[in-house]
Amino acid sequence: MSAAVTVEVGLGERAYDILIGPGLLASAGAEIGKRLPGTRTAIVTDENVAAVHLDTLQAGLAASGITPAVITLPPGEKTKSFDALQEVVDGVLAAKLERGDAVIALGGGVIGDLAGFAAGIVRRGMNFVQVPTSLLAQVDSSVGGKTGINSPRGKNLVGVFHQPRLVLADTGVLDTLPLREFRAGYAEVAKYGLIDRPQFFAWLENNWQDIFAGGPARIEAIAEACRAKADVVARDEFETGDRALLNLGHTFGHALEAATRYDSARLVHGEGVAIGMALAHRFSNRLNLASPDDAARVEAHLKAVGLPWRMADIPGDLPDAETLLGFIAQDKKVQRGALTFILTRGIGQSFIAKDVPTSEVLSFLEENHPA
Amino acid sequence: MSAAVTVEVGLGERAYDILIGPGLLASAGAEIGKRLPGTRTAIVTDENVAAVHLDTLQAGLAASGITPAVITLPPGEKTKSFDALQEVVDGVLAAKLERGDAVIALGGGVIGDLAGFAAGIVRRGMNFVQVPTSLLAQVDSSVGGKTGINSPRGKNLVGVFHQPRLVLADTGVLDTLPLREFRAGYAEVAKYGLIDRPQFFAWLENNWQDIFAGGPARIEAIAEACRAKADVVARDEFETGDRALLNLGHTFGHALEAATRYDSARLVHGEGVAIGMALAHRFSNRLNLASPDDAARVEAHLKAVGLPWRMADIPGDLPDAETLLGFIAQDKKVQRGALTFILTRGIGQSFIAKDVPTSEVLSFLEENHPA
Repeated sequence: MSAAVTVEVGLGERAYDILIGPGLLASAGAEIGKRLPGTRTAIVTDENVAAVHLDTLQAGLAASGITPAVITLPPGEKTKSFDALQEVVDGVLAAKLERGDAVIALGGGVIGDLAGFAAGIVRRGMNFVQVPTSLLAQVDSSVGGKTGINSPRGKNLVGVFHQPRLVLADTGVLDTLPLREFRAGYAEVAKYGLIDRPQFFAWLENNWQDIFAGGPARIEAIAEACRAKADVVARDEFETGDRALLNLGHTFGHALEAATRYDSARLVHGEGVAIGMALAHRFSNRLNLASPDDAARVEAHLKAVGLPWRMADIPGDLPDAETLLGFIAQDKKVQRGALTFILTRGIGQSFIAKDVPTSEVLSFLEENHPA
Repeated sequence: MSAAVTVEVGLGERAYDILIGPGLLASAGAEIGKRLPGTRTAIVTDENVAAVHLDTLQAGLAASGITPAVITLPPGEKTKSFDALQEVVDGVLAAKLERGDAVIALGGGVIGDLAGFAAGIVRRGMNFVQVPTSLLAQVDSSVGGKTGINSPRGKNLVGVFHQPRLVLADTGVLDTLPLREFRAGYAEVAKYGLIDRPQFFAWLENNWQDIFAGGPARIEAIAEACRAKADVVARDEFETGDRALLNLGHTFGHALEAATRYDSARLVHGEGVAIGMALAHRFSNRLNLASPDDAARVEAHLKAVGLPWRMADIPGDLPDAETLLGFIAQDKKVQRGALTFILTRGIGQSFIAKDVPTSEVLSFLEENHPA
């Protein structure tokens, strides 16, 4: 057995374990068999991930006598579509899986969201196992049960809440990630420190090199991020309140992603979140909520790990402040000239602010615009 | 206000009311507004139902200041498809509805299942209001939260459990149904008596003429059927046990529907259930579980109301007994040569039988085959 750390997500009847450590692909059959004895399975993955990790996972399942069906899709955000959903649903039904059988997602956030959605609707809900292969998926999309696809009218507009029965976060597979992708995932790790764990943020400032290098701090950082997210999700499974804290950095971040037309050559999600978190701290300072030292500390850490932290770090031209505000207003509902934002009183002291005047946001964007 | 009867479906946080009575389309705005103040809405309906009832519902909503978007689909079972689902989802998003807004299903079971599924997945779950316009939908698909579409691999294989916030069963609209369709829905009403309400079945034997004629017994029959289904659903919301009792008559019925290739000119769902219920009683008698008098009583009542009750009542040729058994085995999972059936010890004494030998089913089908 691997020396994995276990984080339990406490959701009553829907509680499940996240195992975090090296070599979990190889012991997948044993871990799944222990929790879902006799289950049959279908693996959903993408071509890139399959090329590197599918054989290892299949061998790990075969060791426990599990022979999965395999459904392989093209990589990339375009796979979060109705067409791909239909393909996965049909593949699972073709494999004659029943409600008690399991869909296994092997991949990053796109595959996890898509396969989880399919598992949530085939026979009105089947078992679901996540095997996240990106840092972002290990600390974010694999915890919390949000699944879904994109619509031509916006991202993640269609889906269900469907909790996995087990998450296997193999920290060894992260060594195969491109550095830029690892960094983007790291932004979400730092986010949990900034939301409500100031000591964790301070620990990250001292230990990030070991996390990037694959030392023991990597497992601990992922485990702490999962614990942090699990705490929030357990308080608010269906996102009616506190769960919005997880959107720290996402309001500015989403607007920047939209403004760069989701062109990953210019900006990926985690980079948008990094810049968004720095802006949220700077904006909180402008509103006299937080000290400029805290904003500077966030910016310095993002810069140290090699993440972008200001709009000027995005290659190419950005639309003007007014247009950026339009993207923010499209993402969040504007109510009587005010927006909901995640703001902060300092490192680890984030809160939901429901009445942020759009005029303040506009002035702030104008002041911080690189043009 | 209309003189509606209210049946509460007790599902804790997801509890909701079913209102049953005449004139509910006209008071829809008041009833919805009372429970979901300030809600915006989209009506999902089909061309046939829209032609007869859409104006009345829209006027009923307008009276309370609600102006719905309207999404109209072709009538018929083919509309329970991924394509139609995508069309409804897009229509709801185009109307810019939020999670707290409501999708209203105006139609029979096809529209209810499809619109409920869309409501369950847009923004990971929106409010849903059922306005069932067929007797079958009023007593069956509008209670219990099962939603879904068909797959080329089988019916209802894809969907979610998503409870409505309100059901408005307008008994006046049933006068616009063709008699054959009303009768088919009546088979499901009688089913609740046969499952566990022997007094209700006896009452139906005495009052069915008034139910068909639209007298006060119609409202009472629908209310009692909804109460019966709500009781079973409250005990087993996610169909892990007792809820299977609702499948009385459905194992034989589904096989006959498949054997006639879902050709509604030959057999509609409720007619299949009628024959299936009669066969389930006759089969229970063959297994020495129930008296032949009970089977004869069920057959006599179905015959009296004009429903088919034996395989010979289906126009055209049926495949042989072995082929029919194949359809049954396809519908239910065969485990070690045995099938799960809903059998009975007499009127109102149904139970789940998990080890019915396929050989017994085959002999029974051979004996009762019309060829």
